Parts: sequence; structure tokens; C-alpha cells
Amino acid sequence: MLAAARRVLESDKPHLHAYMPNAGYPQVREAVAGRLRAATGLPYTANHVLMTVGAGAALNTVLKALLDPGDEVLTVAPFFAEYVFYAENHGGKLVVVPPKADLTPDVARLEAAITERTRAILVNSPNNPSGVIYPASTFVEIAAMLTRAARPIVLVSDEPYRALVFDGVPVPEVAPLVTRAIVATSWSKSLALPGERIGYLAFSPRMPEAAALFEACTFTSRVLGFVNAPALWQWVVAEVGDQVIDVAPYREKRDLMYEGLTRIGYRCVKPQGAFYVFPRTPIEDDVAFVRLLAEEGVLTVPGSGFGMPGHIRISLTVERETIVRALPGFERAFRKAQAT
Amino acid sequence: MLAAARRVLESDKPHLHAYMPNAGYPQVREAVAGRLRAATGLPYTANHVLMTVGAGAALNTVLKALLDPGDEVLTVAPFFAEYVFYAENHGGKLVVVPPKADLTPDVARLEAAITERTRAILVNSPNNPSGVIYPASTFVEIAAMLTRAARPIVLVSDEPYRALVFDGVPVPEVAPLVTRAIVATSWSKSLALPGERIGYLAFSPRMPEAAALFEACTFTSRVLGFVNAPALWQWVVAEVGDQVIDVAPYREKRDLMYEGLTRIGYRCVKPQGAFYVFPRTPIEDDVAFVRLLAEEGVLTVPGSGFGMPGHIRISLTVERETIVRALPGFERAFRKAQAT
Repeated sequence: MLAAARRVLESDKPHLHAYMPNAGYPQVREAVAGRLRAATGLPYTANHVLMTVGAGAALNTVLKALLDPGDEVLTVAPFFAEYVFYAENHGGKLVVVPPKADLTPDVARLEAAITERTRAILVNSPNNPSGVIYPASTFVEIAAMLTRAARPIVLVSDEPYRALVFDGVPVPEVAPLVTRAIVATSWSKSLALPGERIGYLAFSPRMPEAAALFEACTFTSRVLGFVNAPALWQWVVAEVGDQVIDVAPYREKRDLMYEGLTRIGYRCVKPQGAFYVFPRTPIEDDVAFVRLLAEEGVLTVPGSGFGMPGHIRISLTVERETIVRALPGFERAFRKAQAT
Repeated sequence: MLAAARRVLESDKPHLHAYMPNAGYPQVREAVAGRLRAATGLPYTANHVLMTVGAGAALNTVLKALLDPGDEVLTVAPFFAEYVFYAENHGGKLVVVPPKADLTPDVARLEAAITERTRAILVNSPNNPSGVIYPASTFVEIAAMLTRAARPIVLVSDEPYRALVFDGVPVPEVAPLVTRAIVATSWSKSLALPGERIGYLAFSPRMPEAAALFEACTFTSRVLGFVNAPALWQWVVAEVGDQVIDVAPYREKRDLMYEGLTRIGYRCVKPQGAFYVFPRTPIEDDVAFVRLLAEEGVLTVPGSGFGMPGHIRISLTVERETIVRALPGFERAFRKAQAT
């Protein structure tokens, strides 16, 4: 990846670093479309792909295009905490639906939460904070549900962790399963360059509103102040966008943490991807339990912020040694909590 | 600049491309603060500087922090057309005040436009579309006016063209003149890398709300989906941020266009910086005149979009030869308009 970045800088490509259509360089968008065609079998073109300033920009751009004030976005707990702001930034409201016990979407509950203000369902798989991957069957159910909806509702699939998967669990492509599917993603995690802000929005060619939404998002991306995705990294991901960092160290840390926690007595859905472990807390009050852990020198985040009280998020973006040293702290806090 | 970018890529700097505080790398912010100290004599520190995804991001970030729904932002015509959206994105409203005949702010009219909902005055100098530079005396008047205001109002100075100045006309530093001053800028123009999205917000150390606004903007920059300014370019501008492209070709094109137009009979304030010439149209209806010019093969933008009907914006980001070839078209359209 770095070699590609150096090649781009040395290429003296005409208009390198220059302005471009707000959606991004047509050649870069075509390169992404080609990968999407290969992955989905659907006829993606450059005009179904909008390059963005990372996934955060992608989500704000599409929600700005979709929402009028008072409109609702459904999501499934646990959810990436910033979704609350992303919806509210554009006058919308995030409506959180509890998941099934395995932390995948409960589609019956999603359907029950639909109102005439629902414009989008926003899901994140592999999930931050749980590491759970939603199976194809979930999206088949969502597709069936959306055909029953009185008004068009789009599925926005936020997939920055798609490449970070353990044990070969498949991450389903949503566009072949759900007609109105929009993918938001970034290379932050797959290429380990989270500071560089490079991602995209892809509008399924099967969606009747694809062209209109592409145009709308080209506009909203500009007026929100993103203007365009960083030029250099557009050229880099066009070249190396299929590369993925080695996930083996993350898998090893996942195993170490998951096995350590369950041995202690924590209950936990086993993460299948991403960087996190999301166990239940031994007491109801997750904020109090985070405080107990902090007293033992262990830093975690309460599940409440992700719409799931009674859980904590543990990050695996630390050294293996840190996890080894943290497990006794997790054990002491667990025993203390049980003793209260 | 490219050499610096290559050096950064080859440096294997620890955590290059990695996440960082949302405000940007502390070392980069300190480098910018050092330049601001030298330019203004004010005690800027890293905590007065927030690195942004270009100036568009900077303005959205600060307006999101400043505005509640219904709040007003004053600006001076002609203004950068996107300001309308930047204010409305955050529930605000852009209030446009006509300028003096020389296209600098009419501070008496600004003062008359202040209401209890006014939160900010947003100015752009060197100005897009007029190329006019607002003199220090304007900011002295604004400062005096703001001391008379019933509530705190901040001056947001949008300065992406600061380095693109002809004939040595000074671009005043606003922070020593106006207590509540926030500078928004980018390196897009000065380093000729508009596609790379790197800029900053600087909060004057003299502003009582500087620390609160820095914190607020660190948050709004994140939740708006910018997350952080692109990592690589942060390191580059820390190193070469004082460099400026050669403005001589722009000055030559400015002279060619300005002299050509005034010889034909166009009335025009002479641009002192930026990339544009903004003459009056020989007929009132600027949209109709843009159409007349298009029939002569000349592409311009109506002044109406910049809050100044009866004008057109001409861009100088073309080859010198294009300007030479366009001037007869400008002349034919002028004569046609006079004949009607």
C-alpha cells in the first residue's frame, strides 16, 4: 500500500491532487465498480460509486440526501454510537431496535418499528461493537419485509470491517439480496490507514432510485463540506483496494480475550470479525462495572452508548501482551461484582 | 511539496496514517500555531488549532458548533455560493448584506442587519468571486461594531486565497484586530492540491470562548463525519505549510483579462488576489448575459449565485491562451448586449 502511494506521488499523473468531479475520479470509481461487479454479479458502473472522506462522510452524505426533518432511521442494537449524531445532523432521528439473543437483527421487531417517517434501515456488519456478522438470511428477511412496506425504505449497509473477518465466516453482499441497498464503507481498517479518510458509497444498480440518489449525494457530499475524497488515496485504493492487512494477529487476540473472559464466567457472543469483544456485564449497571474495571487498570466502554446496557465493549487494537495483563483485572472485577 | 510528501511516506513515522486526536496530530497543530504566533504576535498554542478536511469542512464544523436552529450568519455580497448551504446544513440562515461600491464590507449595513439571532459574521478575503482583499480598516470597524453588539458574535474569516495575492497588497491578520476571530483556511490553493482536503480552524487566543469552541469543534468535526484531517497531508503541511505556488502566472492572466475587459468597456473592480475577475454585466440580467457569452463560446458564472446580480464571475484557472482567445467573445457579447 505504501509502495502504491509512493508510485502515485512519483507518477506525475496529470491533475494528481487536483479538483475532480465531486463524486471522485471517474477512473477510480470505475475500478471500484469493477470489483463490485465481480463480487455481486450486478451491473455496477462508475455512476453507482461515490468516493467519500471515509465511511463517516459516506453515512452523513447519504443521510443528508435521504432525510427530511423528522424522518426516522432504524438501526439495530448494539450500534456504532455516532449513528445518533449522523441522523440528528440532518434533522432525522435514530430509532434503535433490540437484536435477537445472538445480536443479529430481529426483523419482526424492525418491521414493527417502521412508521411513515422511516426512510432507511442502517446496519453495521461486521458489527462495532459486537464483532457479529449478519448472515445472508437476515438480509433475505429484510428484503421481504421491505417489499411489504408502504413506502420505499433503503437499506444502508455500513461495512468498514468487511475485510476483517475470522474463521472464514462469509460477509454477505447485500445488493444481490436487497433491492434498495446502499453500501457505505472505507479502507480505514482493511488497509490500516484510519487517519487518511478514504471510502465510498455504492448504490445498487437494482435500486430504482440509484441515479437520483447518486446525483443527490454528489451534491450533499459537496455542500456538507467534504467536497471530494482525498485525491492521492483515491488513486491508491483504485490500485490496491483489494489488499487486506493480515487478520491473524486480531484473530489470535480475539481468541485470547474471548476464551479468557468466558473461562472467568463472562457471557459473550463470539466475535466473528472487527476489533471488538462485547460481553455481558455481571451486574446490570454497565457504567458502574466499567468503573470497577478501571479500578483494576482495565479500560473499556459501557454498552449503553451503543444502545445495549448491561454490556461492555473491549477493543482488540492493543498489543497481545496488554490483553494477557488485562485478564486478571477482568477476573478481579468480575468477582467483586458478584460479591456485591 | 511533493518531495515532502514522499519523505513523509518514506519516513515510517510511527502511527503514520493512524488515528489521532480528532483535532489532528498535536505536533502538526503546534507547527501551525507557531506560524500563527509569528504572523499575529498572539499566543496561539496547539489547542487553538483544529486540523480540518479543507476549508469547507472547517466552515461546516464551526457553524455546527455555533448555530442553533433559526440562528443567523451574516455575510457580505458577493459571497462564496456554498455559504448558503453551510448555514442551512446546521439549521441556520445566511443573511446577505450588500457591499460598498469597491466590493468591501459596508459595516454600517452589517450592523443594521444584526438581530438577536446573529451568531457569526462570515467573510471571505481575498474574495471568491471578486478577488477583492478587505483592508485592515474594515476589520477595525467590525471590531468596534462587535463591541456594541448586545450578545457575542464571532467573526469567521474564510481565507483559502490568503497566499494568492498580487502586487503585494497586504491581507490583514484578523485576530489582532477582532477579539472574537476564527480563521478557516486550506492549503488547496496555496500548494495547488485542492483535491487533497487539508486545512484548519484557528481560534484567536484573545477570544474568551476559544477553549470552549475548540472543544465543541473537535466534537462537531467528528460527528459530522470528517473524523480528522487526512493524516499524510497533516505531516506535509506541518513541514512545508509556508510554501506558496508561484502567483506570477495568475497575475499575468489577471492583468490580461482585467485590461482586456475594461478596454472593451466592462466596468470591473480590479482583483487583488484569488483566481477570479468579477465585472459588471452591460445588461441587468446576468443570467441572460451569461447565455450571450456562451453563444460566443465563453464560459462564465452569473453573479446572482454569489448574491450579486448584474455581475459575472470569470475564472483565471485556465491557460493564458484561452483568455487571449476569449476576449473577442467578451467583446462581441458586450456589443450585442448594448445593441439590444
